[in-house]
Amino acid sequence: MTAKRVAIIGAGPSGLAALRAFGAARKAGEKVPELVCFEKQATLGGMWNYTWRTGLDEYGEPVHASMYRFLWSNGPKEGLEFSDYSFEEHFGRPIPSYPPRAVLLDYIVGRIKRDNLEGDMRFSTSVREVEWDTEADNFLVTVEDLTTAHVYSERFDYVIVASGHFSTPNVPSFPGFDLFPGRVLHAHDFRDANEFAGKDVLLVGSSYSAEDIGSQCYKYGAKSITFSYRSHPLGFKWPEGFAEHSLLLKVEGDVAHFQDGATKKVDAIILCTGYKHYFPFLPDYLRLKTHNCLYPVDLYKGVCWIDNPKLLYLGMQDQYYTFNMFDAQAWFARDVIMEKLDLPGRADMLADSKAWVARDQALENATQEIDFQTDYVRDLMTYTDYPPFDLDQVAALFKEWKHDKEDGIMTFRDRSYRSVLTGTMAPPHHTPWMEAMDDSLEAFLAPAEPARVRASG
Amino acid sequence: MTAKRVAIIGAGPSGLAALRAFGAARKAGEKVPELVCFEKQATLGGMWNYTWRTGLDEYGEPVHASMYRFLWSNGPKEGLEFSDYSFEEHFGRPIPSYPPRAVLLDYIVGRIKRDNLEGDMRFSTSVREVEWDTEADNFLVTVEDLTTAHVYSERFDYVIVASGHFSTPNVPSFPGFDLFPGRVLHAHDFRDANEFAGKDVLLVGSSYSAEDIGSQCYKYGAKSITFSYRSHPLGFKWPEGFAEHSLLLKVEGDVAHFQDGATKKVDAIILCTGYKHYFPFLPDYLRLKTHNCLYPVDLYKGVCWIDNPKLLYLGMQDQYYTFNMFDAQAWFARDVIMEKLDLPGRADMLADSKAWVARDQALENATQEIDFQTDYVRDLMTYTDYPPFDLDQVAALFKEWKHDKEDGIMTFRDRSYRSVLTGTMAPPHHTPWMEAMDDSLEAFLAPAEPARVRASG
Ligand SMILES: Cc1cc2nc3c(=O)[nH]c(=O)nc-3n(C[C@H](O)[C@H](O)[C@H](O)COP(=O)(O)OP(=O)(O)OC[C@H]3O[C@@H](n4cnc5c(N)ncnc54)[C@H](O)[C@@H]3O)c2cc1C
Ligand SMILES: Cc1cc2nc3c(=O)[nH]c(=O)nc-3n(C[C@H](O)[C@H](O)[C@H](O)COP(=O)(O)OP(=O)(O)OC[C@H]3O[C@@H](n4cnc5c(N)ncnc54)[C@H](O)[C@@H]3O)c2cc1C
Ligand SMILES: NC(=O)c1ccc[n+]([C@@H]2O[C@H](COP(=O)([O-])OP(=O)(O)OC[C@H]3O[C@@H](n4cnc5c(N)ncnc54)[C@H](OP(=O)(O)O)[C@@H]3O)[C@@H](O)[C@H]2O)c1
Ligand SMILES: NC(=O)c1ccc[n+]([C@@H]2O[C@H](COP(=O)([O-])OP(=O)(O)OC[C@H]3O[C@@H](n4cnc5c(N)ncnc54)[C@H](OP(=O)(O)O)[C@@H]3O)[C@@H](O)[C@H]2O)c1
Repeated sequence: MTAKRVAIIGAGPSGLAALRAFGAARKAGEKVPELVCFEKQATLGGMWNYTWRTGLDEYGEPVHASMYRFLWSNGPKEGLEFSDYSFEEHFGRPIPSYPPRAVLLDYIVGRIKRDNLEGDMRFSTSVREVEWDTEADNFLVTVEDLTTAHVYSERFDYVIVASGHFSTPNVPSFPGFDLFPGRVLHAHDFRDANEFAGKDVLLVGSSYSAEDIGSQCYKYGAKSITFSYRSHPLGFKWPEGFAEHSLLLKVEGDVAHFQDGATKKVDAIILCTGYKHYFPFLPDYLRLKTHNCLYPVDLYKGVCWIDNPKLLYLGMQDQYYTFNMFDAQAWFARDVIMEKLDLPGRADMLADSKAWVARDQALENATQEIDFQTDYVRDLMTYTDYPPFDLDQVAALFKEWKHDKEDGIMTFRDRSYRSVLTGTMAPPHHTPWMEAMDDSLEAFLAPAEPARVRASG
Repeated sequence: MTAKRVAIIGAGPSGLAALRAFGAARKAGEKVPELVCFEKQATLGGMWNYTWRTGLDEYGEPVHASMYRFLWSNGPKEGLEFSDYSFEEHFGRPIPSYPPRAVLLDYIVGRIKRDNLEGDMRFSTSVREVEWDTEADNFLVTVEDLTTAHVYSERFDYVIVASGHFSTPNVPSFPGFDLFPGRVLHAHDFRDANEFAGKDVLLVGSSYSAEDIGSQCYKYGAKSITFSYRSHPLGFKWPEGFAEHSLLLKVEGDVAHFQDGATKKVDAIILCTGYKHYFPFLPDYLRLKTHNCLYPVDLYKGVCWIDNPKLLYLGMQDQYYTFNMFDAQAWFARDVIMEKLDLPGRADMLADSKAWVARDQALENATQEIDFQTDYVRDLMTYTDYPPFDLDQVAALFKEWKHDKEDGIMTFRDRSYRSVLTGTMAPPHHTPWMEAMDDSLEAFLAPAEPARVRASG
C-alpha cells in the first residue's frame, strides 16, 4: 500500500501547525503520511509577512497580507503561546507581552525551521482548484507555479485548507465615494500610517482594525480620527482628536455625513469593515460558507467538512485564541487523518456541530465569547496529545486584557502578563508603546530602543 | 444537429465587437450560433467603467478597472471610430476629438444597446476555468456567479477570450519600498489626482500611463512631477515642475536615488510599469503567453490559437488602433466560427504568424509601428465584410497625433481631426483641456462647461 498523501493549503500559523503536528508524530516514531504544502507566497508565516504591496502581487495574485507597518500584537502573547514551544524557549529569555509583528513572525517560523519540519514545500504556488473524485476516492488538486506560470495537478487523499480568512476584504460602498477627492481604501490595503500624518481620517467600522488603525494613525501624527459604527461604538476613552459617529450616510465632496446628523470634512477614508471567507479554488460542494464567527457551520469540531471529512479546515473561526487554537485543531486533524480518531457518523457530527453553533449564536458579550472559545479549545484537546496547558488561566488573562483596554486604549500594550507555560512574568518593554516608533525585531529585543540610545549617546 | 455554442469571455470593447459581428450576420438573415457572454462586472463596457474601488472588488475578485477620474482619450477619437457606427450617428452631431472616458463608454455601449445585441449576458460571473475535452470535441467552461457564489459548468464549441490585458499590473520592487513613509502604488490603483495635490510625485515608467498620470497630477495641483525611465525618457517639452531621470536605484526614507546620480525627496510613488497578459482561468495548453507587443506569438491573424483554433483571442495586441481593430478581429473570428472562412493547416498558420511576429520585432519607431498595425488591420479586413474605411487616412492621423504631442503635451487634446467615415471636421471643445476640470459626459456635451457658466452667471 502506498503512503497516504495530504495537501496543506497555506503556510501561515494554521498550515504550520499541521506541519508541527505531523512532525511530533514522526518524532514519536509513528509513520506519517506524505505531506505537500502549497503556499502562494515565497516564505513561511502567512499573514505575518509584511509587504509594501497592495492589491495584486508580482504575479497578478491577490496580495494576502493585511498587516501593516508598526503593527503590534493586539493581545498579550501569553494568550497565544504554543503549548509545545514557549516564547522563552525561542528567544532564550523572557520578552515583553506585546511584541511587534516581526517578533511574532520569528517565533512562528522558528518553531518550524529549528526542527526542519518544512518537508515538501511548494512556495510561490497558488492552488487553483480542488476536486473530489468519487471513483478514485481522492482529491485532484490543481495548482499554478507562479514563477513559471506552469499549471499542474496532483492526487491527494486528504486536503487541509489553511488559507486564512482575513485577506479578502469586505468592501461596502457609500454614496459619493466615486467623487471623493482623496483616497478611499480598505484596511486590507493600509500599509503605513505616515501617509496619513496631518490628515483628517475617517474609519468606517468598529472592531479591531478600526481601533488599531485609528490608534496608529494618531500615534504617527494624523490630525483627527473619526470612527463610524454600524452597530455599536468602540466606546474607549479616546484622547482628544478622536470622535465616534453612527453609520456613514454619504460623502459630499470631502464632507462625510453620518446618520446622527453630524458632518466632518475628511482627507481619507479607511474601510475597516472586515473580511470574507473566500475560497475561489473550492467547488460549491466543498466550500465553507460562513461569516466571521466563533463557530462556522458545516464543520465537525470546527475542523472536518461534514459532507466529506477528508477535507479539513484549520483556523476558520474568529479569534481570541489564535496560535494555540490552530495547534489544537491541527493535532485533531492529524489524528483524524492518521486514523487514530474515529469520526462519528454524519448525523452525529451534524448534531454536535449544530449544538456548538447554537451556543455561539446565543453569546451576548465578550466574557461569554471568551468562555465559549475556551470550552471549544478544551474540548478539542481532550481528543489528542497536544500538550495540555491551563486554559482557565488563559481565559482569565483574556478578560483582564479586555479591562486593560477599557482602562487605557493607548497604554494597554505597556502591561505585562505571566506565561501559563513557564510561569514567568513578562518584563516590561523598554519604551511605552506610544513612544516606540521603531517596530523592528532588533529594536524590540534591544536593551533599550536603539534610536533613544543614539539620541542620548 | 443542435446549434453551435460560443462563449465570449468579457464584455469590454472586444467582447462587444464579437456581439456586434454576430448581430450583423443575424441582421443579414444568417443563422448564427448561440452566444453566451460571461462578464465579471455588472455592466457592459470593460475597462471603460469607472470605479473608486482598487485591489479586490465587492466579491473578492481583482478589480478590472485601471481607468481613473478625469481620464480623457489619449488619442483622437477619429482613430478608433467603429466603421459601422460613427460618433455622429451616436451623438446626433459632431463632437470634439478628445472625449473623456464617460463619453467613449456611452459610445461603445450605445452601439450594442440600441440594437439589442446583448443576448445571453451573464453579468457578475467570473470565468474560473476553461478546459478542452478532446473526446467530446468541445470546451468545458466553469464559472462562478459572484452574487450567489454558485459555481457551474457549461459546454461550448468555441471560446472567445476578450478579457483584456491592461488589468493585471506589472509591479517591480525597488530597495527601500518597504520603509517608504508614503503611498507606493501601481497605475492600476490610481484613481483621483486630487489625492496628490501639493505633493512631490515620482512616476516610474515612461509610456502612456506615466505621461498621462503625470500630466493629470500636474493639472490637479501636484507640487512636482518626477519621471524615472528604464529605456528612454518621455522627452516631451514639460512645463516647469517636471523632471526626467534615469532608472530608480533605491529609496532611502523619502528620498529617491536615480542611476544618473540625482536624488529627489518624494511624497508618493506611482509605478507606471505596464501590465501583464494574465489568464488564470486558462490551462497551459490554451494560454497565450506574451508581453505587450503589436503581434503576440501563437495566434493566427492575431486571433486564432494555432494549437486549437476553436479558441480565439480578441484585443491582445498593444494598441494604436483600438475599437476598430477589435471589430476587424471580431468579424474575422465570427467568420471562422461560422465556417465562412477556411483556416489553413497548422504549418501555414504558424508560418504566417511567424512572419508577422518577425516584422513586429524589427520595428524601430512609432511611424513604423503605426504602418505595421495599419497593415495588420487592412489584412484582417480583406477576409470579412467589416465595412471598409480609409486606413491610410487613419495612419496619417496617428502620425499627426504623435507630432501634436511633441508640439505641446499639455495642449494636444485641444486639436481637432476629420472623421474618415463622415468627412466631418470635429468642432473644438468649449474649454481647453488644461482648464476642463469636469470630465462628465454632461459637461463635455454642454454648450459650455457648466461650472464656468455658473461662475459668470
Ligand atoms: C491586520 C491583522 C492583524 C492581526 N493581528 C493579530 C494579532 O495581533 N495576534 C493574533 O494572534 N492574530 C492576529 N491576527 C489574526 C491572524 O490572521 C492569525 O494570527 C493568523 O495569521 C491566522 O493564521 P492562518 O494560517 O489561519 O492564516 P494566514 O496567516 O492568513 O495564512 C494563510 C496562508 O495561506 C496562503 N494561501 C491563501 N490562499 C492560497 C492559495 N490559493 N494557494 C496557496 N496558498 C494560499 C496565504 O498566502 C497564507 O500564507 C491579525 C489579523 C489581521 C488581518
Ligand atoms: C488607463 C488606460 C487608459 C486607456 N485609454 C485608452 C484610450 O484613451 N483610448 C483607447 O482607445 N484605448 C485606451 N485604453 C485601452 C483599452 O484597454 C481599450 O480601449 C479597451 O478597453 C480594450 O478592450 P477589451 O475588451 O479588449 O478589454 P477590456 O476593456 O479590459 O474588457 C475586458 C473585460 O473582460 C472582463 N473579464 C476579465 N476577466 C474575466 C473573467 N475571468 N471572467 C469574466 N469576465 C472577465 C472584464 O471585467 C472586462 O469587462 C486604455 C487602457 C488603460 C489601461
Ligand atoms: N494586531 C492588531 O492590532 C490587529 C489589528 C487589526 C486587526 N486585527 C485582527 O484582524 C481580524 C479582523 O478584524 P477586523 O476589525 O478587520 O474585522 P471584524 O472584527 O470582522 O469587524 C468588522 C467590522 O466592520 C463592520 N462592518 C462590516 N460591514 C459593514 C458595513 N457594511 N458598514 C459598516 N460597518 C460594517 C462591523 O460592524 P458590525 O459590528 O455592525 O457587524 C465590524 O465593526 C481580527 O482577528 C483582529 O484581531 C488585529
Ligand atoms: N487614455 C489615456 O490617457 C491613457 C492613460 C494611460 C494608459 N493608457 C493606455 O494604457 C495602456 C498601457 O500603457 P502603460 O503606460 O501602462 O504600459 P506600457 O505602454 O506597456 O509601458 C510600460 C512602461 O513601464 C516601463 N517598465 C516596465 N517594467 C519596468 C521596470 N521593471 N522598471 C522600470 N520601468 C519599467 C516600460 O519601460 P521600457 O520602455 O523600458 O520597457 C514602459 O515605459 C496603453 O494602451 C495606453 O494607451 C491610456
